[in-house]
Amino acid sequence: MIGKRLADVEAILAETLSDSSYPLAAETKEIVLSGGKMLRPAFVLMGAGFGKQGKKSGDRDRINHIAASIEMIHTASLIHDDVLDRADIRRGVPTLHTRFGVTNAILAGDWLFSRSFRLVADYADNKSARMLARFMGSVCSAEIHQDLSKFRYATSRRGYLRTIAGKTAALFSLSLHVGASEAKAGATLTQALRRAGYDIGMAFQIIDDILDYESDDKTLRKPVGNDIKEGLCTLPLIFAMKRDEAALRPLLGKEGMNDENVARVLKIVSDTGALEHARSVARHFTARALKEIDMLPPCAARDDLLSITQKLLTRTY
Amino acid sequence: MIGKRLADVEAILAETLSDSSYPLAAETKEIVLSGGKMLRPAFVLMGAGFGKQGKKSGDRDRINHIAASIEMIHTASLIHDDVLDRADIRRGVPTLHTRFGVTNAILAGDWLFSRSFRLVADYADNKSARMLARFMGSVCSAEIHQDLSKFRYATSRRGYLRTIAGKTAALFSLSLHVGASEAKAGATLTQALRRAGYDIGMAFQIIDDILDYESDDKTLRKPVGNDIKEGLCTLPLIFAMKRDEAALRPLLGKEGMNDENVARVLKIVSDTGALEHARSVARHFTARALKEIDMLPPCAARDDLLSITQKLLTRTY
Repeated sequence: MIGKRLADVEAILAETLSDSSYPLAAETKEIVLSGGKMLRPAFVLMGAGFGKQGKKSGDRDRINHIAASIEMIHTASLIHDDVLDRADIRRGVPTLHTRFGVTNAILAGDWLFSRSFRLVADYADNKSARMLARFMGSVCSAEIHQDLSKFRYATSRRGYLRTIAGKTAALFSLSLHVGASEAKAGATLTQALRRAGYDIGMAFQIIDDILDYESDDKTLRKPVGNDIKEGLCTLPLIFAMKRDEAALRPLLGKEGMNDENVARVLKIVSDTGALEHARSVARHFTARALKEIDMLPPCAARDDLLSITQKLLTRTY
Repeated sequence: MIGKRLADVEAILAETLSDSSYPLAAETKEIVLSGGKMLRPAFVLMGAGFGKQGKKSGDRDRINHIAASIEMIHTASLIHDDVLDRADIRRGVPTLHTRFGVTNAILAGDWLFSRSFRLVADYADNKSARMLARFMGSVCSAEIHQDLSKFRYATSRRGYLRTIAGKTAALFSLSLHVGASEAKAGATLTQALRRAGYDIGMAFQIIDDILDYESDDKTLRKPVGNDIKEGLCTLPLIFAMKRDEAALRPLLGKEGMNDENVARVLKIVSDTGALEHARSVARHFTARALKEIDMLPPCAARDDLLSITQKLLTRTY
């Protein structure tokens, strides 16, 4: 069900990003369509499934376009993110900035933002447009906080949770909220979906950060230990620092850390039990999310939401 | 008259950009408010002066907010532009990327875009929002075309005019258009203003590019010869290359051109008469703009538009 609708969203993305007058349109479109999980659009569609509208073809089309705009905002922020993190690979393909330089990657991100806002202006109501603009601001704040704290290893658990709230949970939350609100779901239901999206997003990001300490390159399609190399202090490292700072501190340096030291940090973090500790925090958010989903009115969208959430929050790669 | 309204726009900018949760809010606000000419907001206000609405306090406030959003989009694109051009100074103060690094400057630009779209979602109608989003896309296209042609010195007069149309004329045109359209001016009048804005913008940018070959650092608050150093091929150089490519070609190299060679290029371009030739192209657009203004219905806004246009297009610094 959701899969069929997501194919429609992908068709909208392909059409929206076909623009012969923009020099990097083809390459940017390739990144958008190169096998991202399309999670955020899926959340928009599921949110809409709780509404009174959204069954008619015209409503469906409108909501598909809003879902597409959210995937574009997400990918635009990933492209800028990759510039900031100097990442080489995204979704299995080389990042834009490694192929066309930092400046063109920045512009490609800006172009995606502009395309996205065009769809929003065409299809979303003003309330949704405002929420999306506010989200974009909150991502920038979170990113800049994260960037300013790189290589300092002084992030607190609280600071970390605030960052991932702005960076990840905000968009999951917003996707369910906008979907529900555009399909005219009631205010109480919309708020409940917003909370569920927030908790799913928090658990999702914590698990993502744990997997950076666990997965190998083949399964996650993203190299393990990348956060350590980039000087990012995520939850596993925050907990490990509390337990064995003496062993970790000398290994955590400035930029250009070698692979041997990265491997040592990975081992120490694992030995301290910090990964299990981080997993318990993720479980806390997962439990809250499942409880919130449980209280939603029974419908096909709730089944989808439950099944996707269970899959996301128990993944091991 | 316009001056008083622009002070209101500046107050809106100051308020919109005060956000303690965003780490670089104060510095970004400083750039926005540090004595830019506020031309684009002025064009919005003048455009609105031709409309049926816009006299009541509520309408005025709405249009002031739209004018503020356009100044933010403009400044955001300048911040990204300065990263691309590696410029050190903007509006007399050091650029953001020289103070906080390239990555934070990119994020500051994104944050400004997001604030701008929030105002647009709050105050503009969907048609204006669409136009603004489209403009943002056209700026990215123009910038990327310009970036890809750097240090190649193969830009044609036509390619140059296309670039400045997307980069500069589009926003002048849009500002008058949005102002008029939001104040419910008729369609014919709105179109006439759109054309006038385009021609003013084209003349304005050509003059700006000529001044990069003429002004000294004190008057323009921007170093002369900057375009040459950055490998940009603007109209004076395009014309000079046609007349004396043999003398110029050996001096035009890759990045890191020394001041002596820049001075030589400046002299050759001036000696070929290319500046006068470029000035004649600017005069062509100026004449068209003045003719279009002349055909507008007489009103205070037309007087303002005429006086600002004459001042802009006869400036020598």
